[in-house]
Amino acid sequence: MAKPDLPKSAINPRREEDFPEWYQQVVRAGEMAEPSDVRGCMVIKPWGYGVWENMQRALDVMFKATGHRNAYFPLFIPLSYMQKEAEHVEGFAKECAVVTHHRLELNAEGKMVPASPLSEPLVVRPTSETIIGASYAKWVQSYRDLPILINQWANVVRWEMRPRLFLRTTEFLWQEGHTVHESEAEARAETRQMLDVYETFARDFLAVPVYTGEKSESERFPGAVQTLCIEAMVQDRKAIQAGTSHFLGQNFSRSSGIQFQTRDGQQAFGWTTSWGASTRLVGTVIMMHGDDDGLILPPRIAPTHIVIIPVMPKPETRDAVLTAANDLAAKLRAINWHGTPLEIHVDQRDLGGGIKSWEWIKKGVPLRVELGPRDLESGQVAVTRRDEGQKTKRFLPASEFVSQVVETLEAIQQNLYARALTFRATHTRRIDTREEFYDFFTPKNSAKPEIHGGFALAHWNGSREVEEKVKADLKVTIRCIPFDDPLHAPEAGHCVITGEPSKRRVLWAKSY
Amino acid sequence: MAKPDLPKSAINPRREEDFPEWYQQVVRAGEMAEPSDVRGCMVIKPWGYGVWENMQRALDVMFKATGHRNAYFPLFIPLSYMQKEAEHVEGFAKECAVVTHHRLELNAEGKMVPASPLSEPLVVRPTSETIIGASYAKWVQSYRDLPILINQWANVVRWEMRPRLFLRTTEFLWQEGHTVHESEAEARAETRQMLDVYETFARDFLAVPVYTGEKSESERFPGAVQTLCIEAMVQDRKAIQAGTSHFLGQNFSRSSGIQFQTRDGQQAFGWTTSWGASTRLVGTVIMMHGDDDGLILPPRIAPTHIVIIPVMPKPETRDAVLTAANDLAAKLRAINWHGTPLEIHVDQRDLGGGIKSWEWIKKGVPLRVELGPRDLESGQVAVTRRDEGQKTKRFLPASEFVSQVVETLEAIQQNLYARALTFRATHTRRIDTREEFYDFFTPKNSAKPEIHGGFALAHWNGSREVEEKVKADLKVTIRCIPFDDPLHAPEAGHCVITGEPSKRRVLWAKSY
Repeated sequence: MAKPDLPKSAINPRREEDFPEWYQQVVRAGEMAEPSDVRGCMVIKPWGYGVWENMQRALDVMFKATGHRNAYFPLFIPLSYMQKEAEHVEGFAKECAVVTHHRLELNAEGKMVPASPLSEPLVVRPTSETIIGASYAKWVQSYRDLPILINQWANVVRWEMRPRLFLRTTEFLWQEGHTVHESEAEARAETRQMLDVYETFARDFLAVPVYTGEKSESERFPGAVQTLCIEAMVQDRKAIQAGTSHFLGQNFSRSSGIQFQTRDGQQAFGWTTSWGASTRLVGTVIMMHGDDDGLILPPRIAPTHIVIIPVMPKPETRDAVLTAANDLAAKLRAINWHGTPLEIHVDQRDLGGGIKSWEWIKKGVPLRVELGPRDLESGQVAVTRRDEGQKTKRFLPASEFVSQVVETLEAIQQNLYARALTFRATHTRRIDTREEFYDFFTPKNSAKPEIHGGFALAHWNGSREVEEKVKADLKVTIRCIPFDDPLHAPEAGHCVITGEPSKRRVLWAKSY
Repeated sequence: MAKPDLPKSAINPRREEDFPEWYQQVVRAGEMAEPSDVRGCMVIKPWGYGVWENMQRALDVMFKATGHRNAYFPLFIPLSYMQKEAEHVEGFAKECAVVTHHRLELNAEGKMVPASPLSEPLVVRPTSETIIGASYAKWVQSYRDLPILINQWANVVRWEMRPRLFLRTTEFLWQEGHTVHESEAEARAETRQMLDVYETFARDFLAVPVYTGEKSESERFPGAVQTLCIEAMVQDRKAIQAGTSHFLGQNFSRSSGIQFQTRDGQQAFGWTTSWGASTRLVGTVIMMHGDDDGLILPPRIAPTHIVIIPVMPKPETRDAVLTAANDLAAKLRAINWHGTPLEIHVDQRDLGGGIKSWEWIKKGVPLRVELGPRDLESGQVAVTRRDEGQKTKRFLPASEFVSQVVETLEAIQQNLYARALTFRATHTRRIDTREEFYDFFTPKNSAKPEIHGGFALAHWNGSREVEEKVKADLKVTIRCIPFDDPLHAPEAGHCVITGEPSKRRVLWAKSY
């Protein structure tokens, strides 16, 4: 499918040819995940799971540093619990997997069929506010029991009709924080604090710049008073919501009965929050940084930082080359980076150097080092950075490579972030007329829906009607109402659709 | 409930009064877990989950050191997959939670009810051989793709009619390793290697000595050719199966179609293994080490190694005491033990020192340090080891405590192991007559089924009939056929029940 006038690429099609298909091919070529035979559920392969483990570890440290502890609550939620919060059950009803039987038995035809119906059906958790609320109601008696600051690492299920690996799957892995506070102010501060954690994590670990802000009412979590989010722009210029933090007010504490005696002896309902991020982050990283040769992993979350590829053309030099490769690996493993040893892989397989290289290119390993018999004599190694083109191989003394390796990894991490930031800036536009707005979000070639549009910062009259019209016409939604900050200070203007007065610009985009 | 002639204890009843109830009370008083409103499912509270996290971390390191990587497979298994292996589905049929619908909708009475029935019901995984096998069938084409060495950390569901926290719950957390090998010998070696990992882990981290061996046919994992296990003796002298490793032969590779081209160009089925350990390990530790004052946690898995309790009788000394406590904490946190910093908690709550102490006693923290105004002057601290009685408080210079702390923690860990080993030896008996066998396993006071029996090493004729009779008469089963080792070398004799010839003694016990 590659056009003859383009250089060879490892992934077909290229991004500009067919972005969704490019994504599928990168996930497959990088051995990240694959669809399973269970509709909408994916298999996360070791390389993809390794990336998720690194994300987990980093987030877990940040959660604990902000005073949270982990716990675990049941997978199953009685149907009656789900119904306690009316908006909540309505929001999730269409996506609920329901357990109705707890046994199998052979029927008359010798086939196993469900048996022993449950007196009350159980919903497989799509999120855990209601089941966790039932525990919190027992745990909280007095203001002395607050705050409760708990996180859970778990799988959740939301039935998905149009699955896409990592980004939208029926079952996914995530963390969900659930907290209870004495006061509204404290709960609101927690909601914002955890969004800041997600923003920092995205920047420092994923090399992903995000917009932060509040969702409009129509995009809020079902049952929340306020939903905050981080929104990333990936390479087809669409937005991905990569983490959310909800201020739930007293909605769930009322429906679950989380009540406590206040400092002045009154009974009051707790103020709760919840916040989550999921394996969707893995998909975000792939779409954000990958190129036409496959994955590019930010070093901070790469399962392997450096792959060493011994090049062994002749049997008589084989042992010497392998020894040198393993010596180099040992030196590198002795280096700590951000508190843990560098992860080094020596690819000793009896395959051609080119075949091996391309495999690691597709898997996005940050640094590749080739080492052959001639390099032994010269004391040099050939180093290639994955974030630069495949032709940027540099030869340098092995000792120099080792002494500079941390700096190089930091440079790759920074380069990916800077690149993403530039890309986003290039494709973010302040738009003030309806005509320009519609033009921005309309593909220029309808036969081949190429990559187009981006983020539009435009005024809005605050009405749900305008949101619905824009969504119906363009498939564009408000991704967030950005927080007040020097870059996005409130600025009066007129709604880009109706011309009515508006106090601030909001962020519009197509999204996953 | 405590008898007047016994010293006061924090847990009522005591172990000797009512062991099962003592266990429930320890779990509750230590804030480890609690039952949820969902039948058979537990809530693992932060302290209990902290113990599980430490177990996970230690096991994960051991799995990776033996060449395994983590991955993740779907929660749901199509009913038809479960049925591929006949013994397997039969073994699990009575415990399967079944998803039959994927939506909720309002019925005519305004109640939410399950809607959108699935064309094929989905079983919530009770274990993952069949769903993982479907992936492996795709991944394995050639001997070059082998071995596959993968582990999964996951939740599983086995419907439980008589739940008990940690030991037997409908949903539990575990890890399940699933491997495929080229040859039978390699798969058998893997099966044994992973059992050895469990044994080492139990000894070094949990301070739990275990018997290792093979299950008799009637106790095998459904579908396995051979099941190996580790069996621990807890304080009511019953056995707990704390980990299993299965050699699955070609049973699951045949039913899943895991086939590969061999080195000589033939088609062959892979040889598979699976192995697992679960949150049951937490219950094992509680029953193994706890005393009448609550939990005693082995230091290697304690979420907090040392709690510092500032004793602040007068407001004017408060600041000085808190400063000294936090200084001591900082010194201790700078110490690495087995690769990670010591976990120290300073309990600054404005509660009496006694109230605070008893809370940490019940939670089983290995070392408690009290620090009051008088200690500041003398430079001393009061240290109590949880594994020794509450009256063994020692006063020693703070600097001495710090310099010896690692040694002290090692001593506690060793003491718990030695104590468990002695206990097991005391209650393990070689039995050669039917009369003694029946007497050993019969409560002496039927009105109050006190703690009795233990492990019996006795001969067996190898028949299922004898197993069934002993189980029916005494609720006793063969826990394992011990491996040949110096301690349990095969030794000819006569079946303790039938008098028939037997080649070796096997391990009999009541069990959880």
